[in-house]
Amino acid sequence: MTAEIITIGDELLIGQIINTNQAYIAERLNSVGIDCRRMTTVGDDAAEITAAFTAAFDRAQVVCITGGLGPTHDDITKTLVCEFFNTDLVMHEPTLEHIKALAQRRNITLIQSNLDQALVPRNGTVIPNPVGTAPGMLLERDGRMFFVMPGVPYEMKEMLDNWILPFLRERRTGTVLLHRTLKSTGIGESMLAHQIGDISSVIGTDGSVTLAFLPNPIGTKMRITVKGTDEAAAQAKLLHAESVLREKAGQYIYSDDEKDLEHVIGQLLKERSLTLATAESCTGGAIAHRITNVPGSSGYFLGGFVVYHNDMKMKQLGVPQQTIADHGAVSKAVAEAMASGARTASGAHIALSATGIAGPDGGTPEKPVGLCWLGYSDAESTFAMKFSFGDNRIRFKERATQAALELLRRKLLKMT
Amino acid sequence: MTAEIITIGDELLIGQIINTNQAYIAERLNSVGIDCRRMTTVGDDAAEITAAFTAAFDRAQVVCITGGLGPTHDDITKTLVCEFFNTDLVMHEPTLEHIKALAQRRNITLIQSNLDQALVPRNGTVIPNPVGTAPGMLLERDGRMFFVMPGVPYEMKEMLDNWILPFLRERRTGTVLLHRTLKSTGIGESMLAHQIGDISSVIGTDGSVTLAFLPNPIGTKMRITVKGTDEAAAQAKLLHAESVLREKAGQYIYSDDEKDLEHVIGQLLKERSLTLATAESCTGGAIAHRITNVPGSSGYFLGGFVVYHNDMKMKQLGVPQQTIADHGAVSKAVAEAMASGARTASGAHIALSATGIAGPDGGTPEKPVGLCWLGYSDAESTFAMKFSFGDNRIRFKERATQAALELLRRKLLKMT
Repeated sequence: MTAEIITIGDELLIGQIINTNQAYIAERLNSVGIDCRRMTTVGDDAAEITAAFTAAFDRAQVVCITGGLGPTHDDITKTLVCEFFNTDLVMHEPTLEHIKALAQRRNITLIQSNLDQALVPRNGTVIPNPVGTAPGMLLERDGRMFFVMPGVPYEMKEMLDNWILPFLRERRTGTVLLHRTLKSTGIGESMLAHQIGDISSVIGTDGSVTLAFLPNPIGTKMRITVKGTDEAAAQAKLLHAESVLREKAGQYIYSDDEKDLEHVIGQLLKERSLTLATAESCTGGAIAHRITNVPGSSGYFLGGFVVYHNDMKMKQLGVPQQTIADHGAVSKAVAEAMASGARTASGAHIALSATGIAGPDGGTPEKPVGLCWLGYSDAESTFAMKFSFGDNRIRFKERATQAALELLRRKLLKMT
Repeated sequence: MTAEIITIGDELLIGQIINTNQAYIAERLNSVGIDCRRMTTVGDDAAEITAAFTAAFDRAQVVCITGGLGPTHDDITKTLVCEFFNTDLVMHEPTLEHIKALAQRRNITLIQSNLDQALVPRNGTVIPNPVGTAPGMLLERDGRMFFVMPGVPYEMKEMLDNWILPFLRERRTGTVLLHRTLKSTGIGESMLAHQIGDISSVIGTDGSVTLAFLPNPIGTKMRITVKGTDEAAAQAKLLHAESVLREKAGQYIYSDDEKDLEHVIGQLLKERSLTLATAESCTGGAIAHRITNVPGSSGYFLGGFVVYHNDMKMKQLGVPQQTIADHGAVSKAVAEAMASGARTASGAHIALSATGIAGPDGGTPEKPVGLCWLGYSDAESTFAMKFSFGDNRIRFKERATQAALELLRRKLLKMT
């Protein structure tokens, strides 16, 4: 089954927005064994959009379209797809009810253009949008399926993952395609590859298994893909590849699915009935933010301190003035004092701390931008470790946050 | 002058890589007044690539192509562009010398496939690649210009910025293309459009001005675009459109460029020599995190409290136990007590607070998931406002954080 992706919007054509939808859709289609052959981006222009529809219709069985479904004048996708499929718009009551309920929950007054979002193609199937007002739609003719989704990424993802992919999985015929992603952190991509060594020990030599390294600022994902015709044989190959990777680099792998590190440490804390607090300087609340992204985190996370100013470090966490004077705010001694101070002040079993120089200013030859001390404290021990997270402020905060969570994971699993 | 962008590579079609080249090229073309009409992505497949060349040749004057210029077997762009322009490859001595020098500097042993990179189309113009081995090339016919560049982003950028754009700036005839983006928050897309009313009062009726609404979970961008032949006339139209938008919806517009709200409030605090602290429950540190994303934020942000557990609210911020017992942790009274407590504990001029139910659990009929109170406190006044941010935990945190920053902006500008 082949696919094309059409993304619509002037903002894409002027480069104001990087087209992440395209890559997301392609990756998801690929994960269910659908082969994306082309991606096209056009502006909010009727002739261009219709030309893109026509060309894609001639080439592909599955066409995923995003953008131009909003309530304003520049949103013309719905009208054009109706014309293309020779149908017209009718009011869809369930969608209308959904829009009204959503508006009520969010305390929004509805106007006509909101209500018009409940108009859908007469000869189409509505794809519900649980997180927004614009419904998606499926139109079919001559074995072609056009899936139309909003351009807002989280609305698009919701529809794609929970409606379109299950739908396509049923329609798809023949090949088995299995994936598993192992997420690693605390080791660079090349060093990870080096650690794994001869790749054929992982993927074999018959070409049915592939391994991709997908690095990002906070770690490297390893994606194993197995293609085949026999489900059981493909499963066995997948398990073999995973076991070899774990044998060679298991200590760096924190998750065997799409779970983030904050979910992993949340689970570990829950299992051990331990509570956690944070004391952050350079990360500015980012560690607490990630921890609290997890539903149920209030069960183990008591709270945190963002001690940006030195007075806050002293007053809230009891870091001695003399320690700051002797060692500087970015030091092993202060990281340790912050962690043990946060533990005492909060009453948590464990506290994490971070102090560093996120830049762009504030670096010195001895303590350059990028330097970071991460601290840990529990009833038995308090310690801090030194890191260097580079000179991009946003990246620095991301990497320091990930390393702090990884430090906690390793400690909870008695790996350090 | 119109343009299209063709990006080539299997890694794009499986979604392994996000296509940042596309957006970069589009933005740069746009900056010199060249109108990008379409972007196409195809794999490393001869038929698909040639089809993309043919279609782009029929539609656009400028075609920018990246990818498939490397030394391995899947790099076929150079051969295909030669076929398309009916020419063949010849050795280009300056490029060969450059490759040899580069290899020597980098201590690389050259193999035949490296030397073959110095082969260029006989009827083309070589675009030098100072930072890599693959030369770029320009091929021209019937007023069409095909610029072929490597897919490696920094090599592409080097060629585009230092060779292609200067070249196009000279060739370009006539059109002026101007943009301005206004960022709004605190109002939905439809209500914003409604507030603005008749769109022709903003964009006129001659078709030279367009207005796009670009919504995301934390606000809506409005992008004005003016096309014309006369720079001064286009400027005047842009200013007119902006002034109408500001007149009708000015209070919701927090930035007239790509600056985020945390930069805007940082600037306002600096100008007023005011310091800030935060007290966060439901946002879990996200407010402090955004504030500290701004370089120099340590100049006005003293720190924050993430008081997830009620004990922390009482102990760190002095929220009276009775207030929590009487009103619940998610209440106007607690939001106010948190804000004034954080101000006292930190010594900051201003404190912001957030308490709410991020979900998925913890909601009741009276206090459903999504409910949030945002508090503000300074020496003159302390107050809290009620919001509803929906039932997706991650979106809830994003939206609450944005609303807290917007509340501060409005207060600093005496808009509330």
